[in-house]
Amino acid sequence: MPIKPKNKPVSELRRDLVSGTWAVIATGRAKRPKEFAKSRQEIEPAPIKDCPFEDSQKAGRGEPLLTLSKSGKIDDWWVQVIPNKFPAFGPAGTCEETREIGPYSAMDGIGFHEVVITRDHHRHFAQFSQKEAELVVEAYRSRYLSLMNDSCVRYISIFHNHGREAGASIYHPHSQIIAIPVVDPDVSRSLLGSQNYFNQNKKCVHCVMVNFERDQKTRVIFENALFVAFCPFASRGAFEVRIFPKIHEPCFHQIDDEQVSHFAEALRTALKKIDKGLKNPPYNFFIHTAPVAVNSAKEYYHYHWHLEILPKTSIWAGFELGAGIEISTIEPEKAAEYLKKF
Amino acid sequence: MPIKPKNKPVSELRRDLVSGTWAVIATGRAKRPKEFAKSRQEIEPAPIKDCPFEDSQKAGRGEPLLTLSKSGKIDDWWVQVIPNKFPAFGPAGTCEETREIGPYSAMDGIGFHEVVITRDHHRHFAQFSQKEAELVVEAYRSRYLSLMNDSCVRYISIFHNHGREAGASIYHPHSQIIAIPVVDPDVSRSLLGSQNYFNQNKKCVHCVMVNFERDQKTRVIFENALFVAFCPFASRGAFEVRIFPKIHEPCFHQIDDEQVSHFAEALRTALKKIDKGLKNPPYNFFIHTAPVAVNSAKEYYHYHWHLEILPKTSIWAGFELGAGIEISTIEPEKAAEYLKKF
Repeated sequence: MPIKPKNKPVSELRRDLVSGTWAVIATGRAKRPKEFAKSRQEIEPAPIKDCPFEDSQKAGRGEPLLTLSKSGKIDDWWVQVIPNKFPAFGPAGTCEETREIGPYSAMDGIGFHEVVITRDHHRHFAQFSQKEAELVVEAYRSRYLSLMNDSCVRYISIFHNHGREAGASIYHPHSQIIAIPVVDPDVSRSLLGSQNYFNQNKKCVHCVMVNFERDQKTRVIFENALFVAFCPFASRGAFEVRIFPKIHEPCFHQIDDEQVSHFAEALRTALKKIDKGLKNPPYNFFIHTAPVAVNSAKEYYHYHWHLEILPKTSIWAGFELGAGIEISTIEPEKAAEYLKKF
Repeated sequence: MPIKPKNKPVSELRRDLVSGTWAVIATGRAKRPKEFAKSRQEIEPAPIKDCPFEDSQKAGRGEPLLTLSKSGKIDDWWVQVIPNKFPAFGPAGTCEETREIGPYSAMDGIGFHEVVITRDHHRHFAQFSQKEAELVVEAYRSRYLSLMNDSCVRYISIFHNHGREAGASIYHPHSQIIAIPVVDPDVSRSLLGSQNYFNQNKKCVHCVMVNFERDQKTRVIFENALFVAFCPFASRGAFEVRIFPKIHEPCFHQIDDEQVSHFAEALRTALKKIDKGLKNPPYNFFIHTAPVAVNSAKEYYHYHWHLEILPKTSIWAGFELGAGIEISTIEPEKAAEYLKKF
């Protein structure tokens, strides 16, 4: 039963059901949804003539690892995947060997770092047609299926930074894929959370959330036959949106063509709502999926892949960095109500 | 024995000895130390006439909770602690009662949110005199000792945001103190890490690091009789600096006057080096200390309080958010070598 305090608290602490992390919904500092659209700088277009992604081969960015086109003709490409020219991880080095340095340990940053470029210099994900969005998701899946075969790779992160304030150093729309030799404890904590929930309840924690959200509807912003997009109960930031497959599935890379199409629709629709509602804000999105294993879906049966979109409406500061708790200045219910309209 | 790969890897993965989190030292994307000073916007001063901290009582910011002056005269104040006008946590609500909302849980954001203001509108921590820095640290300690007596409080976070890009919404130099009713899993993970290390090695993991760093000297940037400041082996970002008491001590609030003075010296010296070397960059610093308990020092005997300074030289993006791994584009050894000079 809800507790009714005499004085209204200035905020609510909400626990993430999977990771256990606390989020603060600071209603005492609340802004109206429209104010979020005003409080940030406009994303400035970069001139096309200096763009290294306009003709990446000429710019010395290497041969494409994958090219996808709308018509089937290669010259008419829409998506190109190329190696990152300044990779954070590369194929050189020794795999899985940890070296001791005094009390510390380190290993080579072995792995892969790729860039997924779409052809249009200005048109970004929120503005993609259904076909264009599908080809991007297809590129994600295709590269994942290829990278997971490398014996060094333990986790593959697919993400997209939009706008300089969200960390995009190049204006031309692009996603990134990083394949790394470790599973970070942050990821492990979520895996452990879903494992523990499964052990206790004999259910997938994400399925429970998806069903509850679809039933409640207050936080859902979009739904099609196979995917649902909602603002999570314990949002890490204002206007956060997560997209889940409705059917339990641990691994992103196992989605079929029909799921690619439905996922692309959910993603571009959610981004369109964020783009219109918050006036083209900077944002990050990333896929959370089971780590690479001989049989990921079996080993991580308790996990449920999904995508998270985090609009950059505030800056991580000392409290978030020091205490690990993130502050959101709008209730997820109000954020969802606002986004639904667009 | 160090492994010597044939091809030089583009990066090194380094494991944080306490939390287990991986940091990437991406030497393949490395910049020279001076380049970090150029790549950011200048911190713009805000006009004094609009400043709510110039005369906080007139600005309706409430009576000071603490006033400290250099001369002992109250009018001549140097530090004033006031309640935050837009708190993320407040005293209203019910303590420690979790309410269930479907599968989720939430609780009132009960606690305290205070602001520590220094008198000068422009002069910031890197520019403080020894006495000025001491009074700020004294204010931190004094407020901590007061807030820890509230039965709802489980963790007290003391932090400082410098510059808009580091999340400071008000230009006038100020720190913040937030007292909250939970210990986040991020903090718990570090506590568990130090507990596990102690169980296995019968030693404090932080003492081991402090001794190793003092012995190696390559990452140390400053040392006095009681404190040492160094760039951590597994730095979370470029030019990160951590300051530790040399003597094992779980709790910040138990430092004596001599430690206050030595800590203030280490902090202002480290900030001065960052300020000069990187040309007044935005930064965050925060104290990590044992949670509030009946006898914190006894309960958390394995922990060792310290302060972390994170200059804002890059933006957290999809990879950091999604995979939990942070990328630093300079080796901590080179960062330390550079900072030592200032």
